[in-house]
Amino acid sequence: MTDRTRVTRSPDRQRTDRAELYRILDDALVAHVAIVRDGLPLVLPMGFGRGGDAIYLHGSTGSGIFRMMASGSPISVTVTHLDGLVYARSLFDSSMNYRSAVVFGTATIVADPAEKAEAMRIVSDHLMPGRTAEVRPMTKRELAATLVLRLPLDEVSVKVRAHGASEEPDDGEDRAVWAGVLPLRLTALAPETSPLTAPGTPVSAAATAYAARIAGAADAAAAAARAEPAVAAPMP
Amino acid sequence: MTDRTRVTRSPDRQRTDRAELYRILDDALVAHVAIVRDGLPLVLPMGFGRGGDAIYLHGSTGSGIFRMMASGSPISVTVTHLDGLVYARSLFDSSMNYRSAVVFGTATIVADPAEKAEAMRIVSDHLMPGRTAEVRPMTKRELAATLVLRLPLDEVSVKVRAHGASEEPDDGEDRAVWAGVLPLRLTALAPETSPLTAPGTPVSAAATAYAARIAGAADAAAAAARAEPAVAAPMP
Repeated sequence: MTDRTRVTRSPDRQRTDRAELYRILDDALVAHVAIVRDGLPLVLPMGFGRGGDAIYLHGSTGSGIFRMMASGSPISVTVTHLDGLVYARSLFDSSMNYRSAVVFGTATIVADPAEKAEAMRIVSDHLMPGRTAEVRPMTKRELAATLVLRLPLDEVSVKVRAHGASEEPDDGEDRAVWAGVLPLRLTALAPETSPLTAPGTPVSAAATAYAARIAGAADAAAAAARAEPAVAAPMP
Repeated sequence: MTDRTRVTRSPDRQRTDRAELYRILDDALVAHVAIVRDGLPLVLPMGFGRGGDAIYLHGSTGSGIFRMMASGSPISVTVTHLDGLVYARSLFDSSMNYRSAVVFGTATIVADPAEKAEAMRIVSDHLMPGRTAEVRPMTKRELAATLVLRLPLDEVSVKVRAHGASEEPDDGEDRAVWAGVLPLRLTALAPETSPLTAPGTPVSAAATAYAARIAGAADAAAAAARAEPAVAAPMP
């Protein structure tokens, strides 16, 4: 842990478990990438993938921010899951449940053709698991137009809040005010088929599996929630 | 529009409609805030609110990054909605539907007590609509411990992708490969009541209304999707 990765606000929320870091990254599709441009901060959303102890970003060779990253500008990459709204009995103690990972470092270009192909597979499998097997391979021209960057997971800060509303038996708050958590989850709606898809073509198994995967995560969370009483039991 | 807010990648995705900017901000709970610290970029997730042509951020007076922002460090604040995965017939043309707003500027402290109270109401109503009426007012001590910052919506860049998979009748791709969009939405699960809530206390109307609001948005999107054929009609 470095000064930069040590959590100073709510240090009890810091996590150092590597598996938790991987899970936060693997469950996310979009990262927010910050860079310093002309001395000023800029943060943009980007798709990404994780392979081993690195994050991979892919973009167009024509993208200015990608070229800046490729030339060694330091970056900060943050992934956040908003897991719930936490309704305390005061606005002051109200909060959010979340999981976030902040990565610091400098990205390098993945230039070796075999490593680049593998890195692009990692990003594709991350953003659209299973899709690689359903579509044609990338062409040489497409590969050449894509810049792939690698950011090692060396300097990382993980912060998690995953519990109920703050309350203590002697906090003096009004128990007749409901307190609790409203869990939030990303879910998929029905797939929308493109006009030029051949009649009778089944929906992509990759898309269907992804929808089921995130629905499963939501169902599991809902089942855990149902195991708690909807209305509070008498105080012990 | 300035050089900084002009979209250079996929300029067709740039939006300049003020109402669309407001909607993107108002539908979001978390922003990613970037700052330059010791010459290096740092990006962190934060709750926020919008009132008129400004974003309000509130944090602890003990937070280092809040004190840096308050002392005039330039910031970049980005809000992103991931609205869907776009499955094209090639990985290269695959994409995401999203709406994002990037705000640049320098925040100022909201010091005037009446303005500060109003700004805090804006943030509370943004993050937990209706909750202010359900809980006690903030105490003087709580108000004093909270730093409220205002960032004007002067320099803003909005980018939206909201359409189907890229395809052209003469693109040479295989029509037997399904292409389309898997729409994604944030939804709420059942509320989880805290252990110390008095027995029989109904769930917060604010929480219930928020869950219904985002479910309504998802339902509306699902209904729009059902209006399209699940399997493509013959090509015209």
